Amino acid sequence: MEARQWVKQQFEAAGMEASLDGVGNVCGRYVPKPELEDVPAVLIASHLDSVPAGGMFDGTLGVMAGLECIRLIQENNITVNRPIEIIGTSEEEGRFGGMLGAQALSGNLTLEWLNTAKDPAGEYLKDALEQCGFSPQEALHARRDPADIRAFLELHIEQGPVLEMNNKPVGVVDGISGVFKWLIKLVGKPDHAGTAPMNMRSDAFMGVADFAHELSRIIDEEGSEYTRLTIGRVELKPGFAHTIPGEAHFTLVGRDMDNEVMHQVSMSCQKVLGAIARKHNLKFEYDQLSWIPPRHFSDDLVDTVEKNAQELALDYMRMPSGAGHDCQFFADLVPTALIFVKSVGGISHAPDEWSHWDDVQKGCDLLYKTLLDLCNE
Amino acid sequence: MEARQWVKQQFEAAGMEASLDGVGNVCGRYVPKPELEDVPAVLIASHLDSVPAGGMFDGTLGVMAGLECIRLIQENNITVNRPIEIIGTSEEEGRFGGMLGAQALSGNLTLEWLNTAKDPAGEYLKDALEQCGFSPQEALHARRDPADIRAFLELHIEQGPVLEMNNKPVGVVDGISGVFKWLIKLVGKPDHAGTAPMNMRSDAFMGVADFAHELSRIIDEEGSEYTRLTIGRVELKPGFAHTIPGEAHFTLVGRDMDNEVMHQVSMSCQKVLGAIARKHNLKFEYDQLSWIPPRHFSDDLVDTVEKNAQELALDYMRMPSGAGHDCQFFADLVPTALIFVKSVGGISHAPDEWSHWDDVQKGCDLLYKTLLDLCNE
Repeated sequence: MEARQWVKQQFEAAGMEASLDGVGNVCGRYVPKPELEDVPAVLIASHLDSVPAGGMFDGTLGVMAGLECIRLIQENNITVNRPIEIIGTSEEEGRFGGMLGAQALSGNLTLEWLNTAKDPAGEYLKDALEQCGFSPQEALHARRDPADIRAFLELHIEQGPVLEMNNKPVGVVDGISGVFKWLIKLVGKPDHAGTAPMNMRSDAFMGVADFAHELSRIIDEEGSEYTRLTIGRVELKPGFAHTIPGEAHFTLVGRDMDNEVMHQVSMSCQKVLGAIARKHNLKFEYDQLSWIPPRHFSDDLVDTVEKNAQELALDYMRMPSGAGHDCQFFADLVPTALIFVKSVGGISHAPDEWSHWDDVQKGCDLLYKTLLDLCNE
Repeated sequence: MEARQWVKQQFEAAGMEASLDGVGNVCGRYVPKPELEDVPAVLIASHLDSVPAGGMFDGTLGVMAGLECIRLIQENNITVNRPIEIIGTSEEEGRFGGMLGAQALSGNLTLEWLNTAKDPAGEYLKDALEQCGFSPQEALHARRDPADIRAFLELHIEQGPVLEMNNKPVGVVDGISGVFKWLIKLVGKPDHAGTAPMNMRSDAFMGVADFAHELSRIIDEEGSEYTRLTIGRVELKPGFAHTIPGEAHFTLVGRDMDNEVMHQVSMSCQKVLGAIARKHNLKFEYDQLSWIPPRHFSDDLVDTVEKNAQELALDYMRMPSGAGHDCQFFADLVPTALIFVKSVGGISHAPDEWSHWDDVQKGCDLLYKTLLDLCNE
C-alpha cells in the first residue's frame, strides 16, 4: 500500500488525476482537454507487485514506462486527442490466484469468488481487501467498460532467454500461450528395494521417469516450436531410500500458442501415460486442474507496433509470450499489445533480474510511438 | 520391554536360563548337562521388534522357531551335546540405525558410537537405553566371543516374492546382498516453465528421469540376476508446477551378491550420470552414504542345510537374501546359515504380512534337523 501511495503521488505530480480502485489498482488518468473526457482512452498497465525476493523490473517497469510517456507528452507539449490512463495493477503474482487487479478491470471476477477466495494459509481475500480499506463490492466496481477503451498496451520484461539468444533488445508480442495443468497419480506397490527383483516391481517412480523421457518425442510428434511440457513437482510415497516408490504424484504443465496443438499434445500424454502404466503394472489417474486457451492479440495493433519498431530502426522480433500477463484479460475485449524488453540471462523473479537501460529505452520509445499513433489516428 | 519380559518367561518355562543383555537382547540358554557348559553353543536368533504397523512374522517367527526346537528336544528327551541359545535380538529395525542387538552380540559397536548415536528426532540412544535400564557400558558387554559359538542359525520370512513365484515353501539362503547407498544432487536452473524454450533448459528433473531410464540397461550390461537399483526418494527444488526444477536430490540404492559387480554397476552409474549431466547442462555430485559388501555364508553349513532339506523331501531353493538380517554380522565370525519361509504375495512390513503355517512348519523342521546335526556331530 505504501508503494501504491507513492505511485499515486507520482501520477499526481505528472498532472494526472490519480486514485486507487476497489482492488488497489493505482490509476492515473491524463485528459488533455475537458471535451475529450468521454473519448475512449488508451490504457497502459502493468503490475506493481512481484514475487517475494523478486527483482525490480518485473511489472513495475511497465507502470513507470507509462508514467514516462505522460511526462514526455507534457514536457514537450505534445498534442494527444484521447485520455490516457496509466494503471499499476494489484496482485498479479498474488497469493489468491494471481492477476487480481487485471481481472477486476476486465470484469472477470464474481462476488461469490471474491467472498470465498483464500490464500494457501487460509486467509480470506475479502479480509485482506478490508484490511487495506477495500471490499468485495468495491472490487466489482473496478470493472471498466470495453467501450471506453481504445486499446490496452503493456510493456514488460521478457522473463525468459529468447530475446537474448536472438540478440534482440525488444519483442513485439502477438499472443500469450495457452496452458494446461494436470496432477497425475501413478500407483504401484511399495516393496522392499532389496527383496523385490527388478522384473517383479510396480515402481511408480519408474513410471514418472519413463513418461518424462517421452516428453521430447511427444513435442516432436504432436507439438510446435512453442510447445512446453514441464514436470515441476514430484512427490513419492513412501519416499524412503530402501523402499520402491508405491505412489508418485506429479504435475504436468503444458503450453502452446494453438489450442488444437494443446489438445493433440495432451491426448498424446494421456496415451503415453496409459502405455507406461500398463508396462510397469501401475494404476494411473489424472486431474486436469486448469485449461486456459491461448490468446492472440488483434493483428491491427500488433502490426502497428511492428511498423513502429521498423520506423524506429529497432532490432526486434515478433514472438509469443510463454508466461501470462495482465494484458491477456483484455485480448478478447479491446485491441491489445504487449512489448517485451530483453532480460539479461533470461533471469526473473530473482534479485539478479536485470534489463539494460539501453534496451529499456528502446522498449519505451516503441510504447510511446504506439501510444501517440493511437491518440492521434 | 513388555514383549521381552514375556519371551523371557517363555524361555524360563521351557527350562532355559533366561536373561536380558545390555542392549535388551532376550537370551534363553539351554545346557543339556552341566559338563557341556563350556562347549561352543549353537545360537538361534532373530529379532523381536518390527516396523511400526508391521506384521506378526517379521523377526518374531525366528525366535519362536528356536523356542519350539528347545521344547521338542525336551518333550522328546532328545540327546544334544552342546548348549543351545535362543536369542530375541533388539532394535533390528531400530531408529538408531538398526541391527543394534545383533551388532552388540557380534562386537560391532563402539562406546563412542553408543554415546553419540541419535534417532531422527534427536533422541540419544544412550538416553533410550537408560530409560530401559541399560547403559552404553553394558551394551558393550553384550558381545559374544566367536570361540564360544559353534554356529549361528536364523529362520526368517522371505519378505519378498521369489519363493512364491517359484512355488517353493522354503529357501536355503547362501548369502546376503551387498548394498551401496548414494545421495545424488543434480543442479540446473530454475526457470519459468512458460518462458524457457525446451532446448534452453537445464532441467534437473529431466536428468533424474533420463538416469532412471538407463538403470535397466546398466543392469543388463554390468549387473547380474541379483542386481537391484532403486531410486526411492526424490526431492525437487523449488518444486512448483510452473517452475523448471533447478535442483534434484535423490537416493540410489544398489545391491548385488558380488562386490566386484557392485563396483562395475556403481562405476557405470557414475559415467551415465556424468553424460546425462553434460547433456542437460547440469552440475552433478554424489555422496556415498554407505557401502556394505555382500556376505557369503560358509559353504559347509549351507550345504548341511541343503542336505537336510533334501532328506526332509522339502521343495526348496538355494538363494541369496536381498534384505539384511541379524545373521549377517556373524557370517565372517562363525559358520552361519539362514532359512527363508515363503511370504504370501511377497508382502512384509505391513499388517497383511502372512506365511502359511504349513510352510512355517517346513522351515522349522529344517531348522530343527540342522540344529540336531550341529549338536550331535
